[in-house]
Amino acid sequence: MNTEATDALIRLALAEDIGTGDRTTLATIPADARAQAVVVAKAPLVVAGGVWFARSFALCGGDVAVQTLVADGQAAEPGTVVLRLSGGARELLMGERTALNILQRLSGIATLTRRYVDAVAGTGARICDTRKTGPGMRTMEKHAVRMGGGSNHRFGLDSGILIKENHIAACGGLTRAVERVRSESPHGLRIEVEVTTLDELDEALAAGVDIVLLDNMDDATTREAVARIRRAPGRVLAEASGNLGLDRVRRVAELGVDLLSVGALTHSAPAADLSMRVIA
Amino acid sequence: MNTEATDALIRLALAEDIGTGDRTTLATIPADARAQAVVVAKAPLVVAGGVWFARSFALCGGDVAVQTLVADGQAAEPGTVVLRLSGGARELLMGERTALNILQRLSGIATLTRRYVDAVAGTGARICDTRKTGPGMRTMEKHAVRMGGGSNHRFGLDSGILIKENHIAACGGLTRAVERVRSESPHGLRIEVEVTTLDELDEALAAGVDIVLLDNMDDATTREAVARIRRAPGRVLAEASGNLGLDRVRRVAELGVDLLSVGALTHSAPAADLSMRVIA
Amino acid sequence: MNTEATDALIRLALAEDIGTGDRTTLATIPADARAQAVVVAKAPLVVAGGVWFARSFALCGGDVAVQTLVADGQAAEPGTVVLRLSGGARELLMGERTALNILQRLSGIATLTRRYVDAVAGTGARICDTRKTGPGMRTMEKHAVRMGGGSNHRFGLDSGILIKENHIAACGGLTRAVERVRSESPHGLRIEVEVTTLDELDEALAAGVDIVLLDNMDDATTREAVARIRRAPGRVLAEASGNLGLDRVRRVAELGVDLLSVGALTHSAPAADLSMRVIA
Amino acid sequence: MNTEATDALIRLALAEDIGTGDRTTLATIPADARAQAVVVAKAPLVVAGGVWFARSFALCGGDVAVQTLVADGQAAEPGTVVLRLSGGARELLMGERTALNILQRLSGIATLTRRYVDAVAGTGARICDTRKTGPGMRTMEKHAVRMGGGSNHRFGLDSGILIKENHIAACGGLTRAVERVRSESPHGLRIEVEVTTLDELDEALAAGVDIVLLDNMDDATTREAVARIRRAPGRVLAEASGNLGLDRVRRVAELGVDLLSVGALTHSAPAADLSMRVIA
Amino acid sequence: MNTEATDALIRLALAEDIGTGDRTTLATIPADARAQAVVVAKAPLVVAGGVWFARSFALCGGDVAVQTLVADGQAAEPGTVVLRLSGGARELLMGERTALNILQRLSGIATLTRRYVDAVAGTGARICDTRKTGPGMRTMEKHAVRMGGGSNHRFGLDSGILIKENHIAACGGLTRAVERVRSESPHGLRIEVEVTTLDELDEALAAGVDIVLLDNMDDATTREAVARIRRAPGRVLAEASGNLGLDRVRRVAELGVDLLSVGALTHSAPAADLSMRVIA
Amino acid sequence: MNTEATDALIRLALAEDIGTGDRTTLATIPADARAQAVVVAKAPLVVAGGVWFARSFALCGGDVAVQTLVADGQAAEPGTVVLRLSGGARELLMGERTALNILQRLSGIATLTRRYVDAVAGTGARICDTRKTGPGMRTMEKHAVRMGGGSNHRFGLDSGILIKENHIAACGGLTRAVERVRSESPHGLRIEVEVTTLDELDEALAAGVDIVLLDNMDDATTREAVARIRRAPGRVLAEASGNLGLDRVRRVAELGVDLLSVGALTHSAPAADLSMRVIA
Repeated sequence: MNTEATDALIRLALAEDIGTGDRTTLATIPADARAQAVVVAKAPLVVAGGVWFARSFALCGGDVAVQTLVADGQAAEPGTVVLRLSGGARELLMGERTALNILQRLSGIATLTRRYVDAVAGTGARICDTRKTGPGMRTMEKHAVRMGGGSNHRFGLDSGILIKENHIAACGGLTRAVERVRSESPHGLRIEVEVTTLDELDEALAAGVDIVLLDNMDDATTREAVARIRRAPGRVLAEASGNLGLDRVRRVAELGVDLLSVGALTHSAPAADLSMRVIA
Repeated sequence: MNTEATDALIRLALAEDIGTGDRTTLATIPADARAQAVVVAKAPLVVAGGVWFARSFALCGGDVAVQTLVADGQAAEPGTVVLRLSGGARELLMGERTALNILQRLSGIATLTRRYVDAVAGTGARICDTRKTGPGMRTMEKHAVRMGGGSNHRFGLDSGILIKENHIAACGGLTRAVERVRSESPHGLRIEVEVTTLDELDEALAAGVDIVLLDNMDDATTREAVARIRRAPGRVLAEASGNLGLDRVRRVAELGVDLLSVGALTHSAPAADLSMRVIA
Repeated sequence: MNTEATDALIRLALAEDIGTGDRTTLATIPADARAQAVVVAKAPLVVAGGVWFARSFALCGGDVAVQTLVADGQAAEPGTVVLRLSGGARELLMGERTALNILQRLSGIATLTRRYVDAVAGTGARICDTRKTGPGMRTMEKHAVRMGGGSNHRFGLDSGILIKENHIAACGGLTRAVERVRSESPHGLRIEVEVTTLDELDEALAAGVDIVLLDNMDDATTREAVARIRRAPGRVLAEASGNLGLDRVRRVAELGVDLLSVGALTHSAPAADLSMRVIA
Repeated sequence: MNTEATDALIRLALAEDIGTGDRTTLATIPADARAQAVVVAKAPLVVAGGVWFARSFALCGGDVAVQTLVADGQAAEPGTVVLRLSGGARELLMGERTALNILQRLSGIATLTRRYVDAVAGTGARICDTRKTGPGMRTMEKHAVRMGGGSNHRFGLDSGILIKENHIAACGGLTRAVERVRSESPHGLRIEVEVTTLDELDEALAAGVDIVLLDNMDDATTREAVARIRRAPGRVLAEASGNLGLDRVRRVAELGVDLLSVGALTHSAPAADLSMRVIA
Repeated sequence: MNTEATDALIRLALAEDIGTGDRTTLATIPADARAQAVVVAKAPLVVAGGVWFARSFALCGGDVAVQTLVADGQAAEPGTVVLRLSGGARELLMGERTALNILQRLSGIATLTRRYVDAVAGTGARICDTRKTGPGMRTMEKHAVRMGGGSNHRFGLDSGILIKENHIAACGGLTRAVERVRSESPHGLRIEVEVTTLDELDEALAAGVDIVLLDNMDDATTREAVARIRRAPGRVLAEASGNLGLDRVRRVAELGVDLLSVGALTHSAPAADLSMRVIA
Repeated sequence: MNTEATDALIRLALAEDIGTGDRTTLATIPADARAQAVVVAKAPLVVAGGVWFARSFALCGGDVAVQTLVADGQAAEPGTVVLRLSGGARELLMGERTALNILQRLSGIATLTRRYVDAVAGTGARICDTRKTGPGMRTMEKHAVRMGGGSNHRFGLDSGILIKENHIAACGGLTRAVERVRSESPHGLRIEVEVTTLDELDEALAAGVDIVLLDNMDDATTREAVARIRRAPGRVLAEASGNLGLDRVRRVAELGVDLLSVGALTHSAPAADLSMRVIA
């Protein structure tokens, strides 16, 4: 899970926080002081990001050992000790903020995702994420969504096809756009098209697409769209997006779509309430 | 405002989104197609991050020109066109998500900060941020706080002194910790100490600190703390932190503190609702 | 086509060739000398890599202008001037080897691919590449394959699913492996499975895979495999690999497979014979 | 042998192959699965690149142990196990292609070099490489040439002097060019001049050069050139280049030159046939 | 003390010295040879930089162990063994120059600083450095100054306020400049102003600055300036700079200033005389 | 002259000086303010480094134009304007220190070198540098030496052969070491051996070395060594090193050596006295 890209982001975060050195800690904590610490949940939450929490300390240069007590994907109640740390006191203090910023954000995403997943439980529909992630956080945030029980949409523009209005306009029609993609792209990628009307849907199905994204359709239209998709040959997937708040998401799920993609999972999840306390 | 660090983050974001190429766009949009686009506010918000929105397209490699219609720090109503773009159609589509992710997040922070600033208007207290920022986003997010009317706390551990409980414990006392910092640190940095009781406050003032952080004190204690700070020689600043929701922040401001530091400004602001629409 | 990754590779190449400076050129060529040069084909070939040839000079720091006379994908006869350059004489000499090394290698790949594509002309089968590319050359070499008329297989491990023997063994069976991939992977990726026997093929088709890779099968088995694939529901693609020399590839293409993947296109193409001559 | 530069290239190769993660492996292989593998020669070859084969797995992040059974520079027959690996199953599969691409290419170069070296055995002439190497591969490919029994020409433009036609033209004469180089360059570098006629050779010898490169001369001219070089004062080396195929190279060697530089060693060696098989 | 920045500098230094390999060592020293070495002082000096001396060998890739006999900040007499090394013979020879270049330079700075500190002993004034450091050497050189007994001025432009003539001119007056800084900058930074006359000093004190830099004042003016600073409310620090050679520095210190900043500590300290000798 | 390596060093220097922003300048200088400045010599000196002075501002991100009035290698008297600048006022102030630190250091080196070169004028001996350069400064400092009239020794360990005592010991004798180097190293590098006695010199000459380094020999021994070198066949160069202060260097030059290598040129040159003044 630690990649060049996640390491690069953590290094940026450490660099901006520590800069040329933690003046307070260097002046007050002896170089050889040792300490222990715990990370405690202060509200109900789903944990995500333990690996990168630990990696933050590793890239900080010290020898901090991190023990996971609540694994990624598990829920924690207020007061639960989620992680336990021991190592050089300076490194514990210097890595704390970077590590916690990541853990709190990812756990916030996992916690919000879990609420969405619970909301559609039993319908067979899957909650999935979007590309609306924090800059440089794609790998981490998509992991957090999975830890909350969600599924991942394409990672980025290179590993999935999604034909939208602008692509169609530039090609002079949906059918033509699908043909272009089919001949130009690696044959391992499914072809998904975004539609906003039933007419567009019909054209997409006739063109032989693999996935249809029903964007911002009302309930009645969604219901009819799903019916037409089910009648199409092959295994075409139905995905809904737009206006999928916690209050509406179950209703749409019950209309029979396979996937519900929700930008808020990553762009608007509040940080989970976790704090680190140095002991002894 | 574009620095090596902000460029590095934007490059990470572009790399994770575009990877080895936008399969859909490369297959459907001719290399020489041109297009225009607008970014529109879909809810009331305060704009922040226009420079990095534009930088995302610049680092994407094309020749997209970005025109700012609503400057950073200004409010926009639903329907307002905030930015206008023109350039290569491929680059517009390939940079869109990275650029918007930054703009929405920063505008979300500026919008929330503005609400806090408005909440304490007239009290003389300043709203300021913390180090609870997104990984790699420190420069951008602190800018967004200023655009919302807030002030910045220290940028990182190297450009400010803040003595906390752990530093005090390791030194064997608050007074000793202040002395250590005074002799070891560059003389251009003020010395701030976090206190949670009035006894600690008295010791801090006696040690000649420059700023006192009153952490999680109730109203009565905060009031008494401010009074003691005002009686101290020199110009000692009073800063409050902890439990400063929008419902409570004005009450604390009216107790006379100089500064109110609020982690939620950066760690829990929902994304501002902005979307980009390609035209023509 | 110039990306962070291709730039990074070109920088490595320039660094290793020029190092701390071209001792011969710095001593003998005045800093302000100008020159012109041409790149000439010395054998029949298909051109590929003009963009990166030019980029090599750009990253070398000078102001060398490169004019393309034979575009990527076009054939050139011996004696044809493919590119024309003018600029600082020092930069022309210092960038020459790096630029030519790239151009010769990519044109070599395009030339060999063209021979394969011609060999299967009219059969409807497509020649495609593999991941057996030079280190750091993936983007460039896959482009060269397209310029030779070939198609691209998945770019890398993240943008395509290919279940091989080891994956199947670890999962306890092909069907189980397909299920795992279907539930864990982004829904935009087709599922391809490598099979070596007709029994494995039957299991793959029953599991509902999207593409089947027929590895190292003899002609008779390949023929039967294609027949079974065509009888399967949905649109399942048939790909052949292994032992596909120029002497055999057409015979396999005529057995009805959709795709023929050939490692030699990139791992064993000899460099195309191109040289650069400074004039005036 | 692992340097910043070779590491940088391997990282580029891993990044382009693995990207954001091996979807197939992550879905099918448990994180804690262990495996063993062997790399087997499938044709007669000379091994080169074992160090970087192993480094590919190390930079991939896992704990794969690589045991060398056939050392660099040694020959292997079909069926011979060249390397043995054990470690995390995921890392074995994710690093395989990058590692093999390097090993196959370098062993291909060593194998071809060995054929050239054998061809000139007993003549006293040395086979040496050129700067016609794969981008970023200079260190690795020059090592492979040595493993095949060849010698290295200058590594790059900064660590050797080679005055060619363009340098001479810009200086207004060969003698003047040699003088310029002698006064401007570090005194530890020998001065080599490329000549194509006997007149140029005479001027070069008179100017006191240390090495003469006889470019594309026919046999008779080469013979006379060697004779004149041997009559010159000091220890002048004779190097031949151009049109040195396996069919002609021995004949030229027998004309008495010291060195034969062959671009094909690195720019046109086919990949050696090696494959990796996971066991147990 | 090892940071990304110091590592980056050491890597640059190793890269420029070793480049593509130490030709002499690779040809003459077997890969498995082991050796020991000592670093000896050849003149009286104060040691600084042991950590980065050792880091140079670590980043060189070998397993060289470095044992510190004279710690940073301690004095050494001619003949004293300062460090002891053991490890691979190749790595010892390849890292030697880079490591020594750093150690000699930093020890030179510490040695010169110590002379300044001794010169003002007993006056209560502190010797401090400036930003006149070697490119990329800021962290290392400021450490060397502390090891010599000096204090550090602000690390860089982001972690300290120093208002100079140009800032004042652009703002339209000293008082206005101080106000601007007070409202725009993080509240943890003290405000320092450079003054060259007593009138400017009076305005600075009236504006409530925290530190005054008396630049290039003669003795009489400095004396009067100190007197006025001592009469100001609060704890204002007096710093002197300009023309502070070893012959004059004590006289200025006795005028009562708190700090003496001396550019020569870092920009003109001769290298300390230390050499490395391989033994056995 | 600007290379990846020099750019990398300048970026490190800018990053450490500016960090997250020049607090003073950002608060006091408007973003659109323009200014002019001059760099003035305050003592007699030889200028070096103008290109990197200018590059510092370019990499700082602004549009500062730098005009050279005194070129590299020319002398300047006190009061001479060496460079003239105009551009954004903020960028002028933010790049000033980094640019000046480089210019002062390199001009200091050129100035000291000129004194050495003048000291040996007429003897035919050349003053040359060593590898005792500032970390990351090799390219710049070797340029400064040339600007002072000196010559460059090998740039680094990869572009020159210098066999020292340790290499000889490891090989079991000088003759054996020379043979090893001759067979293992690129044939374009001359072979230099360091000797400390006449016996070693005789062995080196018998082994056919190209250059002899006479290390720390007294005058009489040096004289005899030169005589023996002149009697050797071929063109063997004599180089002296060790204890070559300005007071002794001419005497050694007159003993007939070709080269005098002086570490102090780069490791102990005091910074040249240059300052920058913003005007209007």
